Formats: sequence, C-alpha cells, structure tokens
Amino acid sequence: MRPHTPFVGLVPAVLTPFDSTGELNLAAVEPHAELLARDGVAGVFVGGTTGEFSSLTLEERLSLTARWATVTKGSPTRLVVHVGANCLADAKHLAAHANALGAAAIAAVAPSYFKPKSLDVLISWCAELAAAAPDTPFYFYDIPVLTGVAFPMADFLEQAPARIPTLKGVKFTNPDLMTLQRMLRADNGRFDVLFGMDEQLLAAVVLGARGAVGSGYNFAAPLFNRLLAAADANDFATARAEQYRAVELVALLMRHSYLPAAKEVMRVRGVDLGSVRLPHQGFTAEQAANFRRDLDALDLAELLGTPGM
Amino acid sequence: MRPHTPFVGLVPAVLTPFDSTGELNLAAVEPHAELLARDGVAGVFVGGTTGEFSSLTLEERLSLTARWATVTKGSPTRLVVHVGANCLADAKHLAAHANALGAAAIAAVAPSYFKPKSLDVLISWCAELAAAAPDTPFYFYDIPVLTGVAFPMADFLEQAPARIPTLKGVKFTNPDLMTLQRMLRADNGRFDVLFGMDEQLLAAVVLGARGAVGSGYNFAAPLFNRLLAAADANDFATARAEQYRAVELVALLMRHSYLPAAKEVMRVRGVDLGSVRLPHQGFTAEQAANFRRDLDALDLAELLGTPGM
Amino acid sequence: MRPHTPFVGLVPAVLTPFDSTGELNLAAVEPHAELLARDGVAGVFVGGTTGEFSSLTLEERLSLTARWATVTKGSPTRLVVHVGANCLADAKHLAAHANALGAAAIAAVAPSYFKPKSLDVLISWCAELAAAAPDTPFYFYDIPVLTGVAFPMADFLEQAPARIPTLKGVKFTNPDLMTLQRMLRADNGRFDVLFGMDEQLLAAVVLGARGAVGSGYNFAAPLFNRLLAAADANDFATARAEQYRAVELVALLMRHSYLPAAKEVMRVRGVDLGSVRLPHQGFTAEQAANFRRDLDALDLAELLGTPGM
Amino acid sequence: MRPHTPFVGLVPAVLTPFDSTGELNLAAVEPHAELLARDGVAGVFVGGTTGEFSSLTLEERLSLTARWATVTKGSPTRLVVHVGANCLADAKHLAAHANALGAAAIAAVAPSYFKPKSLDVLISWCAELAAAAPDTPFYFYDIPVLTGVAFPMADFLEQAPARIPTLKGVKFTNPDLMTLQRMLRADNGRFDVLFGMDEQLLAAVVLGARGAVGSGYNFAAPLFNRLLAAADANDFATARAEQYRAVELVALLMRHSYLPAAKEVMRVRGVDLGSVRLPHQGFTAEQAANFRRDLDALDLAELLGTPGM
Repeated sequence: MRPHTPFVGLVPAVLTPFDSTGELNLAAVEPHAELLARDGVAGVFVGGTTGEFSSLTLEERLSLTARWATVTKGSPTRLVVHVGANCLADAKHLAAHANALGAAAIAAVAPSYFKPKSLDVLISWCAELAAAAPDTPFYFYDIPVLTGVAFPMADFLEQAPARIPTLKGVKFTNPDLMTLQRMLRADNGRFDVLFGMDEQLLAAVVLGARGAVGSGYNFAAPLFNRLLAAADANDFATARAEQYRAVELVALLMRHSYLPAAKEVMRVRGVDLGSVRLPHQGFTAEQAANFRRDLDALDLAELLGTPGM
Repeated sequence: MRPHTPFVGLVPAVLTPFDSTGELNLAAVEPHAELLARDGVAGVFVGGTTGEFSSLTLEERLSLTARWATVTKGSPTRLVVHVGANCLADAKHLAAHANALGAAAIAAVAPSYFKPKSLDVLISWCAELAAAAPDTPFYFYDIPVLTGVAFPMADFLEQAPARIPTLKGVKFTNPDLMTLQRMLRADNGRFDVLFGMDEQLLAAVVLGARGAVGSGYNFAAPLFNRLLAAADANDFATARAEQYRAVELVALLMRHSYLPAAKEVMRVRGVDLGSVRLPHQGFTAEQAANFRRDLDALDLAELLGTPGM
Repeated sequence: MRPHTPFVGLVPAVLTPFDSTGELNLAAVEPHAELLARDGVAGVFVGGTTGEFSSLTLEERLSLTARWATVTKGSPTRLVVHVGANCLADAKHLAAHANALGAAAIAAVAPSYFKPKSLDVLISWCAELAAAAPDTPFYFYDIPVLTGVAFPMADFLEQAPARIPTLKGVKFTNPDLMTLQRMLRADNGRFDVLFGMDEQLLAAVVLGARGAVGSGYNFAAPLFNRLLAAADANDFATARAEQYRAVELVALLMRHSYLPAAKEVMRVRGVDLGSVRLPHQGFTAEQAANFRRDLDALDLAELLGTPGM
Repeated sequence: MRPHTPFVGLVPAVLTPFDSTGELNLAAVEPHAELLARDGVAGVFVGGTTGEFSSLTLEERLSLTARWATVTKGSPTRLVVHVGANCLADAKHLAAHANALGAAAIAAVAPSYFKPKSLDVLISWCAELAAAAPDTPFYFYDIPVLTGVAFPMADFLEQAPARIPTLKGVKFTNPDLMTLQRMLRADNGRFDVLFGMDEQLLAAVVLGARGAVGSGYNFAAPLFNRLLAAADANDFATARAEQYRAVELVALLMRHSYLPAAKEVMRVRGVDLGSVRLPHQGFTAEQAANFRRDLDALDLAELLGTPGM
C-alpha cells in the first residue's frame, strides 16, 4: 500500500458540476479545484453525499473521478474517492479505478437498500471492496442518518483491521462524539477519523479530531480555516465565534434547501456548478433570488474574510 | 400506450440466478420460467427486491431483463420489469429498454439514499421515469420498510395521474390495508394494486385485491393458487388453512434467512439459481443442510400438492 | 382464576367522558353503556388508548373503572380494564382493583418511557403485573406504533405462559397479520387474539380472529356488526362493502383529527363525552362545524342503519 | 418569579434510592447529598430519567422531592425538580408542589405515549404546566431518544417565551450541537442550556455551555470538575484527557448495563442506593461481581483523585 499520513485540515466533499441541461460538466472541475487550492484545503472528497453520487451513473462517477485526478495531479490537494454503491461490483469497479489513478484514499458508505444484518457482514462487504484497491488506504464512511446502517464504529475499528489490511480510518458523519473519542484512541491512535459535520467541527477538534470532510468547505473554507487556526493557537473564544458564524451560514442554507443553496454560494464565489438532480430539487429563479437576498444580508465576503471576493 | 389489463393471480418476484462464482447465470432463466409456467403464474416481476436488483450492475439488469423477455415471448407469462434505481438516469435507461422489449409493465421503487422530501417530488421523479417508457404501463412500487420512503399512496393515486399518463397502479409491499382498500376504489377502481406480502395474501384478497407480486410464488405457487381458488369459490375456511400453511413455510425460511433459503427451495423444485450476493449472506454447507432438514419436516411436496415432485 | 371464554364480536375501546372543564364526567358512562348495549357489543375496554389512559391520574382511572363496573354489572357487556402504566406499582394497583371488581379481563401495554430491553424483561414485567390480579384473565396489549416496543408476539405466546398463569391472549394493534395467524394457532389455538384495527377488521376475521377491540365500535358498532354477520354468513362481498364504508368513516375522522372527531360523532349518537385532553387537541367551534358538515355528507344514519337515529 | 441565575457547573441527575425490597429509601438522600456537596456540585436534578421517574408513583415523586428539599435547604446545592409526566394533571401537581417548596427550577419532558403533533401543541402543554409553578423557573427537557418527540429547539426558544413567562432554558439531552449553539445565542443569550450528555461534555463546553445535568455526576463529579477547571483555564489538552477518562468509565457502565452499574459505583463511593426497578433490570450477584472486577481494573479512586476514598 502507498505510504499514508492522516489528513489534517479541511477536505471538501466536492459538489458535482452539472450544466444547464443537467449533464455532467467536467469543465467546471478545474476552476473549482483552483478556488479550493486558494482557500487552503488539504484534499477533496469526490463523489460523496454532497457530490450526489447516488444520482450519477457509474460512467459519470468514473469520468468525474478521472477529471479530479488529472486536475489535482502534482498539487498538494489530495484526492479521496468515494466508491460506495449498493452494488458491490460497481463499488469494486470504482475502487480499482481509483487505485489505478493513484488516489490518496478511497471511502465507502454501507449498502443501504439491503442493509448488512450484522457488523460482521458489513466488514465482509468492506473487505471485498477494499481488496479491489490494494494500494489505496480505505476509509469506511459512517452516515447512519442516510443509510439507516448503524453499527458501533469503535467495534468496527477493533474487528475490521484483521480482514482489511488497507483500513486507515473512518469518515464519520455522526454526532456520537463518545464514539469519536474512542475511535481516535483505538489501537494507540493509529486510525484517522475524518469528521463530517461542519456545523460542529470545533466540538470534534477539541476532542482530538484533526481532519474533516464536509460540504461547507466547498465555499467557506477560509472561515473554517480561521476556526482551526484559532483552536490550534488555543484561542477557543475566537474558535467558538467562528464556529457560530459557520452555524449561521449553514442554518441559512438549510432553511432554503441545502444543496441548491450551496450551488448558489459557489456561483457567488465564482464557480458555476449548475443545479442538482432529482430527488433533490433545484431552485426556481424566485427561490434563487430569495436565497441570494438572505445571503447578502449575512455578508458572505466579510464572513469569509475575502473583501475583494 | 399498449392496451393494459390488470394482473389477476400470482406474479412471482423472480429470484436472480447466479452461478457458483456469483456471476449472473442466464441459462437458468429458461428452466425457471418453465417451472413457473407449469405452476400457473400470471407473470414475472424481474429484478425486484427478491431479485436483488440493487446488487446487480446496470448491464446485468439489462441482460437479465432481455433474457426473461426472450424466454416469456409469446407465452401467457406477462413480463413486468422493475426499473427502480437511486440514479434516475439508470432507471430511465432500464425503462426505455423494457419499453423497447415490449414489457407488459414496468415498476419502480422510490430512490432511497436521497429520499424525496415530499409526495410532489416523488411524483416528479416517477413522471420523468415513466416518460422514458411511453408505451408501457407504469406501477409505483411502495416498500417503505426498505426505502424509508413512506407517502400516503391513496394521495399518490389522486395526484399522480395528471402527470403520469401511463400510471396503472401500485405494487404495494405494505401492511396498511386501509390504504389498500382506498387504492382499490380510487377513481372508480381503475387502478391495479399488486399486493406484495405472501404471508397475508388472503387478507388483501378478501378486501378486493386480485393480483399479487411476491417471492413465495417462485417456489410455492401451487399452494397460493389453491388459496386463490378457494377464495374465488367462496370457501374461506380452506383459503385460511392454505394461507396458514404458507405462513409456516415463510416462517421457516425467515428463521433460516429468507433469501438463501428460498434458493434452497428452488433447488428442491429442480431449478438451481445459485446463492445470493453481499450484503445478503449465502448459506454455508452446514446451514444449507440444517435448512433442508427442517424443510423436509414440513413436507414441501405435500404442501405444494406435487407428490411426484 | 375465573372461568374465561374468548371474546366474540366487538369490544369498544371506550372514550373517556369529560365535562366542559375537562374533568372526568362519570355521569356519562351510563348513557354510553346503554348505547353500546343497544348496538350489540360484547364488552367494553376501559381506559385504553382511545380512553386516553395516559392523560388520566391514577385516581381517575380507578374511579372510571369502578363506574364502568357498576354500570355493566349483571349485563352481558363484559368489562375489560386496561391497567398498563409506565410505573409498575401503578399498574399493579389498577390490576388489583380490577381483580376486586370482578373484571372479565385486564390488559396492559408495555412500559414505553423506559422500554424493556428484551422479550424476557417484558415477560418479567407482565408476570409481576398479572400476579396482582390472580383471578383475572390477562391480555398483553401490543401496540408498537405508540410504545416503540416491538417484540415478536408469536414468541411471547410461547415463552410467557410458563410465567403468567392467567395469560389468555393478546390485544393486537399491529398490522402484522402473519403474526396474527401464528398467535391464533399457538398451543392449539388456546389463546384469544383481539384485533385492534377497525379499518381492516375483515382481514383479521378472514384469517380467524373472532374478537376485536377498537375505537370505532364506540359509535359505529352496527356497521361493524353487519360486517361480522356477513362474514359469518360467508357473504364476503357484503362484508367487503361494509368494511369499505367503515374505511370511509375512519378516513374522515382521521382527516379532521381522530379523537375529537370521534367525540363529535358520539354527540350525534346522543352521548356527550366532552372533548379531549392535551397533548390531544380538541376542536374549535369552527373545526367542529367543519367536521359535522363532512359527516353529514357521509350520511351516518344510513351508514349505521339507524334511520331514526 | 424568583430571581434566577443560570446554572454553572455540574448538576447530577440524582439516582433514586431504593431499599432491598424495592421501596423508596428516603434515608439515603442525606448521605447522597453530603457526598455531592463534598464533590462540589451546583445543584441536583431530582426525579429525572436517571432517577427513574416513570417507575415511581406520584406519591413517591412528591415525597422524594420533599426530602431533597429538606436536605438541600440552606445549602448551596440548588434543587431542580423534574415534573414531567404523561398525565398533565400529575405534572401540574408536581409543579405546584415544587413551587411551594421553593425549588430553584422545574423541568419537564414532553409527554410520550401520546406525542404532541406540533411544536405549537408542545408549547401549549408546557405553558399549562409551567403556569402551575408561577414562581419557579421552567426548563423544557429535550430527550428525543427516549420520548420520540423531536422538535427543533431553536424554534422552541423563539416561539415559547410569549406563552411561558417563566421559561428560562432547556435541559438538552441531544447530540445536536448546532442547535445547542443556536440556543445559547437565542435572544441575546438569555437562555440557560443544560447539557445532558456526560460523555461529550467538553464538546458542549467549548461551544459555550456552562451548566450540565447528567447521571455521571452522581459518582464522578471530581473527574468532571477537573475537566471543567481545565477548560476554564484554557488547558484543553488536559480537558480532553479528562473527558476521555470519563468516556472509559461511561463505556464500562454501558457495557455492563448503565443504571445498575451506576448504583454499584455509588456503593463504592459509600452511598447505598439499592437497585433499580422494572423495566430496568438489577444485577445478579454474579453480574455485580463482574462489574466490580472491571471497575477495579479502571482504578476509580485514582480516576476521581480521591485516593483515600
């Protein structure tokens, strides 16, 4: 397996670019990557929940991954490819492809139409999948609110390593911070836990998390980087204030409908990623205008510390 | 759209055939179809939940459908193709393919990783999907226990027809028999409701259901046909006894793990469909032997009324 | 224990009478009982879910029970007392009281703030409770949609009898008709299963159920009795039509808010039981008028076959 | 209303004392209070979830409250009385009693057998309840994992104050730290949010919480006070280490069954509170011995910094 170091800092779960007809728009990957590089991210998480992976065909997922691999090649932006799928054969196809591209890591959600009946079955699934990418660090992606698959991740990190040699950690989109702490200490702290909830990042950081994967890092990385810097500098009053500003931003997006709102914010930041696919619903022109008005009231430029934005 | 008549009788949700390496084994479709024809089914429901659709690649789903189309061509066994998928583009691909093959109907589950936020969004999804098969009757497949998508189906049948011209009914894997009754009477009874719970088929029948899609009809259609005949003849004492015998069979399979057990029963009936795919788990040799022993105790041949089986 | 025979026919889960200030109005019990006797019910189920037991004080539950015991004494209307409570001491108090009053049976829901962690704990709970009423048949009241406690009732009927000598059956407010069938056949059919879903009563009847506890039998027993008579006479076409008329009535109440609507219907039937208690919400005058208008459109008198009502 | 200041520090959700026959053992309240005073708590939360309120009769809740009022009278240990109940009349009775005793605050869970259908109904419920204790600050107790009642608490703090003049805050047993942050800032920070999850207290503290109600503070307050002191001193490395030690303790209790294990720990700390009530299950002698052995391995005395314990 390739040498691996834990992720430190922000890894945006990148939004997937569509054109005005709803087709994949790979031309937008490069400007998106440039913005993220300027914003100081540690990597990108491609084709995850924010990236609407389950609304993409297999071919689209492969070509999207390939483009991100090309665009990030040689840059400090590490590539994490989400390869989860309900169909294990598809997931393995994606994993082998990411392996061939030299991705820094792969990650996978549990299958969720049929749910594994036990932790042991989940580990069997992950073992088969990870074996298709033998050179690539593997992260399990725990997101029970969407999959309905909820096994104790502290137990996963105890039982899985014997069967998944490439296991390096967990992407944890789960508010259970007791389990977070246990994972961070498992086997002398050798696992990487990537926290997946932007709106309470500081909570995970104070408990020891170092890396984070999230949707807000697409457009608000400067804000979150200030939060991380303040925490690093032991200035928790500032960190708390920054976290709350992030909460206000996230709450605004949620009130309007998170994903189409996030794509509006990207346009404000200069990158047009189009709209979203069903069963998500895009904004009407009126909804977009309403959102923009509320976003203006929040003063995003000031929020991001990019007055010339 | 093609002329359509409601389904009357049993429509097995056919098990998908795999070979010993876990690959699709299309050669088994023909003997499976022959058995079902002898057993007197009204149609086949291909690539549904029992068929492990979410564990198949798109290519596999297409070739499986094509084989069933070939095998049932010209026979009285009507072909229903399940085309549901989390990715709408995949679902439309499957729908167009079924349309081109002249399927009697298509059906689709709701997307379930991302769940439609309202009944209206679900209808939008179905409308786009159904439009890809403009000649083919469309059934929504309601199975909230697996999808987590639970909208009131009586409302669906009120609101959807205006936007889905090919809508013909609902495959209803849902124990809510109040809704079943309302659907059967909706718009003067013009919709077809295919009941999806073998173990309480008689309950749906007494309330007016005429057609049923289920996994038990793969291997126990003779038993269920006796149940239906008794109900038709107004002999509900016999129908009840047959239903209970079905319950004993279903309970046995559930106790051992339904899907691999069902494939064991198929072998007893002379059709080898192999095992199952992850995240389902196949039987070990010992588990298979244990199940066979319990199955023998139930006297399947007698149960099916096929002593020479 | 007192001799016990299974319940055959309708057992209304009686609504609890309140006066205009929201206090218990015991004076309304007698006219309510008279109406039900005229309507031909087999018993009454006092202080259950429909009776808002969890919104009553212990004293109120005791006095309500005592009044029903007085009013039904010597009549063919058998008294079933619901004694379930989150506090086992309260439940035992209610059970002992019902025992002293000579109730025909007691029933109890599972505790639901703290939920039993296993079927075994649930049985321990029921065993302690039932022992407080040693002369009185005990029914477990399974209603997972409200309690969140969902154990397999077929297993309950296997394991519980050894520890609950007075166990006679289950009140089953659960759409799982496979389990219903298994319970009806358990131990050679010696258990009584009282079905709790009016809107699909016929489904349970065709599968073998003989008795039913439900809220609709407060005001619509004549309709449901016609349904039962038709089923008994093997006239399932009529039974189905009656069941659907019941569905239309139930759907109307649900659309307006079931419990306050049910009390409006009681007023139409000549018995004023007042309103409901928080967290249920009573009708405003306008809501009541709206409901009455829709109810008139359904022609309740005709529905109940009581033109002179 | 009495003058009110927010709670700062630990408020144990006190375990309820039982004797060897399972009866309330009020004699144990005083030594329990003395231990907590020595351990430096800010108050006590009586008759909450940890106190098994739903397993107590109304009389028991009243006498338990009265004893804690007597024992804490004149001490710096502030008395918070949990008055929630499914029956609003019971809850109001408890509230009036707490009001008469001069409690520092009351708190109440939502009714949970019948669940409020909207936030508005929940507020109506709380308003009626709080009005029964007009001199006493009121806290809503949000614990959706047990009640199944899950309304957005940020909205509650916006809408409820107009109808609940005594509203002072929320006891929040909920891992949603985005909502926590929003509540702490609501209406210029005038609400008190008492965090209810010991195992992630530090996360709440770093986000601005000052007070905490929890079960672990019965027996491990010294550990948690060190955590709070370290955070106050901006020494988050120490705070994190202390939090993790708490996690190890909590995980141990959970593995053995939390509530009976907590009572074992209390015995180690010198206060015998007996066992638990159904539907919780007490330890057998063997289970108790097993737990003690594992507890010894953790070195509780060292953990609590009370070597002479």
